[in-house]
Amino acid sequence: MIKVGIVGATGYTGAELLRLLAVHPQAQATVITSRGEQGKPVADLYPSLRGIIDLVFSEPDVDQLAQCDIVFFATPHGVAQNMVPDILQRGVKVIDLSADFRIRDVALWESWYGQPHGARELIPQAVYGLPELNRDAIAKATLIACPGCYPTSVQLGFLPLLEAGCVDLCDLIANSASGVSGAGRQASIGALHSEVSDSFKAYAASGHRHHPEIVQGLNDIAALADGTLVNGAQSSVNLTFVPHLLPINRGIHTTLYANLTDPSVDVQALFEARYVNEPFVDVLPAGSHPQTNSVRGSNYCRIAVHRPNGGTKVVVLVVEDNLTKGASGQGIQCMNIICGLAEETGLAAPALLP
Amino acid sequence: MIKVGIVGATGYTGAELLRLLAVHPQAQATVITSRGEQGKPVADLYPSLRGIIDLVFSEPDVDQLAQCDIVFFATPHGVAQNMVPDILQRGVKVIDLSADFRIRDVALWESWYGQPHGARELIPQAVYGLPELNRDAIAKATLIACPGCYPTSVQLGFLPLLEAGCVDLCDLIANSASGVSGAGRQASIGALHSEVSDSFKAYAASGHRHHPEIVQGLNDIAALADGTLVNGAQSSVNLTFVPHLLPINRGIHTTLYANLTDPSVDVQALFEARYVNEPFVDVLPAGSHPQTNSVRGSNYCRIAVHRPNGGTKVVVLVVEDNLTKGASGQGIQCMNIICGLAEETGLAAPALLP
Amino acid sequence: MIKVGIVGATGYTGAELLRLLAVHPQAQATVITSRGEQGKPVADLYPSLRGIIDLVFSEPDVDQLAQCDIVFFATPHGVAQNMVPDILQRGVKVIDLSADFRIRDVALWESWYGQPHGARELIPQAVYGLPELNRDAIAKATLIACPGCYPTSVQLGFLPLLEAGCVDLCDLIANSASGVSGAGRQASIGALHSEVSDSFKAYAASGHRHHPEIVQGLNDIAALADGTLVNGAQSSVNLTFVPHLLPINRGIHTTLYANLTDPSVDVQALFEARYVNEPFVDVLPAGSHPQTNSVRGSNYCRIAVHRPNGGTKVVVLVVEDNLTKGASGQGIQCMNIICGLAEETGLAAPALLP
Amino acid sequence: MIKVGIVGATGYTGAELLRLLAVHPQAQATVITSRGEQGKPVADLYPSLRGIIDLVFSEPDVDQLAQCDIVFFATPHGVAQNMVPDILQRGVKVIDLSADFRIRDVALWESWYGQPHGARELIPQAVYGLPELNRDAIAKATLIACPGCYPTSVQLGFLPLLEAGCVDLCDLIANSASGVSGAGRQASIGALHSEVSDSFKAYAASGHRHHPEIVQGLNDIAALADGTLVNGAQSSVNLTFVPHLLPINRGIHTTLYANLTDPSVDVQALFEARYVNEPFVDVLPAGSHPQTNSVRGSNYCRIAVHRPNGGTKVVVLVVEDNLTKGASGQGIQCMNIICGLAEETGLAAPALLP
Repeated sequence: MIKVGIVGATGYTGAELLRLLAVHPQAQATVITSRGEQGKPVADLYPSLRGIIDLVFSEPDVDQLAQCDIVFFATPHGVAQNMVPDILQRGVKVIDLSADFRIRDVALWESWYGQPHGARELIPQAVYGLPELNRDAIAKATLIACPGCYPTSVQLGFLPLLEAGCVDLCDLIANSASGVSGAGRQASIGALHSEVSDSFKAYAASGHRHHPEIVQGLNDIAALADGTLVNGAQSSVNLTFVPHLLPINRGIHTTLYANLTDPSVDVQALFEARYVNEPFVDVLPAGSHPQTNSVRGSNYCRIAVHRPNGGTKVVVLVVEDNLTKGASGQGIQCMNIICGLAEETGLAAPALLP
Repeated sequence: MIKVGIVGATGYTGAELLRLLAVHPQAQATVITSRGEQGKPVADLYPSLRGIIDLVFSEPDVDQLAQCDIVFFATPHGVAQNMVPDILQRGVKVIDLSADFRIRDVALWESWYGQPHGARELIPQAVYGLPELNRDAIAKATLIACPGCYPTSVQLGFLPLLEAGCVDLCDLIANSASGVSGAGRQASIGALHSEVSDSFKAYAASGHRHHPEIVQGLNDIAALADGTLVNGAQSSVNLTFVPHLLPINRGIHTTLYANLTDPSVDVQALFEARYVNEPFVDVLPAGSHPQTNSVRGSNYCRIAVHRPNGGTKVVVLVVEDNLTKGASGQGIQCMNIICGLAEETGLAAPALLP
Repeated sequence: MIKVGIVGATGYTGAELLRLLAVHPQAQATVITSRGEQGKPVADLYPSLRGIIDLVFSEPDVDQLAQCDIVFFATPHGVAQNMVPDILQRGVKVIDLSADFRIRDVALWESWYGQPHGARELIPQAVYGLPELNRDAIAKATLIACPGCYPTSVQLGFLPLLEAGCVDLCDLIANSASGVSGAGRQASIGALHSEVSDSFKAYAASGHRHHPEIVQGLNDIAALADGTLVNGAQSSVNLTFVPHLLPINRGIHTTLYANLTDPSVDVQALFEARYVNEPFVDVLPAGSHPQTNSVRGSNYCRIAVHRPNGGTKVVVLVVEDNLTKGASGQGIQCMNIICGLAEETGLAAPALLP
Repeated sequence: MIKVGIVGATGYTGAELLRLLAVHPQAQATVITSRGEQGKPVADLYPSLRGIIDLVFSEPDVDQLAQCDIVFFATPHGVAQNMVPDILQRGVKVIDLSADFRIRDVALWESWYGQPHGARELIPQAVYGLPELNRDAIAKATLIACPGCYPTSVQLGFLPLLEAGCVDLCDLIANSASGVSGAGRQASIGALHSEVSDSFKAYAASGHRHHPEIVQGLNDIAALADGTLVNGAQSSVNLTFVPHLLPINRGIHTTLYANLTDPSVDVQALFEARYVNEPFVDVLPAGSHPQTNSVRGSNYCRIAVHRPNGGTKVVVLVVEDNLTKGASGQGIQCMNIICGLAEETGLAAPALLP
């Protein structure tokens, strides 16, 4: 049984790890930490776990976490970078769900997150935890930087097109919409039911922190396809990314727009071929429109491809659950890979529908 | 592997059976029928099952169903009674999620459902599938009449009080509220998003089909506690039942009101003692208020007991998922009992929260 | 043009006053105060008012408020009692939407609200602002204590029964459910979309602050009907009140239960006769079930009466918008009465449906 | 008092006309027709109108409608074209909310709507009812073709850019999302609460009926700006339009993407200047993100303009209520213009928020 520690287990991604681990046949949460709620049973915050997970939140403590096989960070950015070095030194592997190790360019990270990075020496060894792209590297990694929720959907949606080199990289658009749980479990007026429900809006249209992460990922993919070196990747991709806030709790829907440079390509076949062996990426039949409820609570990502009116614009529709494939489910998928388990272990449950 | 057939698998309780069976380690859906959708893969109706369940809807056929170990009916009332006799004769056990075999008094059934009963000879052998009440009989049954969603919540909430004989049976009130999925997957104006969402209402305040089922169940419990015979039970219980429609998909919340005849009783201790060994009934600590999202998609029923201002009125709060503990989950719980499996098999997943 | 001041205009009842005054032909908001947002245009908080109301929040100031004809308090409890004495002294009438002057028994108020009352000398002159009960007194009042949202629905629902003296006062039950806006516009985890939406729960089942207000009101009604004096009212009413939280923004639905002492009464006729001349109370035809969306954003209260299965239990269903008839709309109705305007002035708009 | 007839008043746009007319000081609904509900009071379908509008649905009848000053069609496409000729002949003006007269190219209309057009001779005299574009023509019109809900938002969002000629017409993108009421009040599985709520999806990504209407409108605007003739407009605009379904009842949010051909343009100033005198178009301050609830139930359209990361891509965010500015409110705005009333008459109410 793999012993799992979770730092910052009071938030929604922490709770999602606990929900998924509760049915994982080969892993078990053994330590859950929280600075604010120490001493409190997890069921007091999450009654859904009553009688299922009997852990109590404890103060984060490296000695205690060192007894785990794997430690997840489900913390806001800026926390993992302070504790990860000590944990890695104790020989424990780390899967970080936060943004701390996602961006290779430290200066870029520091400008978007407005603080100096506390563990820049670890950045080069962090592996970007997108299995569909990095499976082999993940298997050997000691530190996983799990992709953000939006970046997962955008990269999985553009991946086949960029690998095939059939779209114009200078004008990519990602129009995304996320459920409210993406904002976390913090008291804020903006996330109140009365402000969010029965409504819809864009936000951060002039610039969002996930933009540099997505661009780095797309550049890597494009450079690989190109034959140029990953780290020497020229910043060729020009991406417009506009996130929106949905009046639902879970779910991301991303609508991608790109211009085909090769109109003869069969985009449906391209996507099907690329993902045929992927356990969690499901390419829908031509003409389909994936709905977020078809992945609610599951680790699946569903994709459909369209060419409106048969033209050269390609529209890709991608859905995922932001807490599952967009965060905790993807983290457990990485854990399975690291531990040599079948990738689907504990992640096979279908979505909750209706 | 237990082979499971599902008649009427296109509705929400049918789909819920499929969702739960998808992760059941010892049972598998092998036949799913639908008169309207035969030939269509289940994933066309429920994309959440794509890549997980590859069955195709077929025309209901007794020969085919006879190859199953257990057949579920997830049909509207009036269907099971026509097919169940043949299926039972072939030695296959039946779990009926519909109302066909719930009420022992045929005339009462016929008056509420407005049609003659097609298999009245089977009613006496039908076992009411509430494991918390009838576990032993369920284990030996060949025909299970699964309780309705409202009746499950009302009976589990009143059960400890009635068994203890400490409330006035002449004035019981059940104020219930259900999510919209209880209305099924039929096109109707009343269940449109524009009519239901962002709103709330009572319905059937003057009389609802679940009323006689609940009263029968409560009378049985009271008579048993009393020492009088079950089937000779005098109709002692007087119940007011008012259902309401919630703008959510899943979940029932029932608020029960009763007058204590013995004010010295410790209701919290009473409930805890009654349900201490029940795997799916969770009595919350004193002062709690269960929320429907704490059981969303799970087979748990959570209960809290209050005595407002310390008086003689007892208020019981009960939550369950109407599609799971209120229907399909309870059906699988019965199946596990019948098949000699641990009752929790395949039903241990926590609720989806948030 | 009546000049209106609003103290605490940043909350939802304050915003609702502004929304209603925007279309009131004979009153106009001229001063809006907020300690936290002074200097900010109201449209920065409520973009729905952009181009319609151009006021800026100012620090609460008695001199400025004294230039109004009427001052509304849309503040949490404990605020009005400190400012109202000064404002009344300046000859300005006050309509308090908070709980400060609703309860005549100061000790009771202080025990429920956990603080000493700052203006107890004013309590006797405060008129309870329920027009259907107190229209004449409201017309002459200088200080109005507007009823709470729940109390409005419970009192309007029981009023005809209590006036007719046809129900048992010892066992009244009010099972209420409110939209989230009742919790106000404060950052809190409990009111987050992720916590509230797609869910339902009871709260404060063991005792809620609105309980003493409702009991006082029902006692007054019963005592009046009885011929006993209002202020000498013996506390004859025994009420169980359980509030619930709905996953909607606006709307209260109250389900009332009482036992008829006179089963021969025609409850439908009773309700229709009582409210025939009330502009904002609509008794639905027999057999109806009012839905909260039928009053969303309007000042109407809709009521239906049932006797389930023709028995002696009477069930009353009441809907109102908690921010309108349950707060700000009722306040403006009182203002219209005080100012000698037709009671419907500015309040005639139908609900927003769908 | 203007006498208004409404054909097809049972649907949501019909009900919205009634809601708005209920507070219109100079117009009144006098005839409402429905083939399916004749003889039924409108309040039976829309309890929100009880006591406010006492009309009864009647069979559509030209003689009766001819006694009105204006007749609205709130019917599905294909109905107005059969009745409008007779009504116009009787000297009554018509405002058609359906698609029947929006597209000048009859063959194009027939191919998208799959039926022959029944009144093609009237198409040339129909005026497209977008006041911000066509105010003068509307004032003199006898037949108004009210724009569709999506087309209103897309055209108002692109209008300033196209008039200024500062974007590349060959690559315009409109990513729109609509509330469910846009699908009308028809029983359908796809619009059930259980299917739509707590979810999000695109639809008709490969082609939607509003596409030709939008393209015609954008071409007209571009051609006017160009100096080329409207009707001889070369089809210069290349638009990708992807609609999405929001789990809300009312509201459209459109996110537009275009490439600036002149990066020196101050887009904020451009939008503010264009709409400074428009009563119902509100350009938000730079950096804003309009939310659909800021226009819920109101006739306002709110717009914000962004240039992400200061680049040459311009992103326009547009919100409107699909039933109000997107349908019935716009129709009444046209009626006001035709009748010489102030354009805001009866339409000044702010949005319902929260």
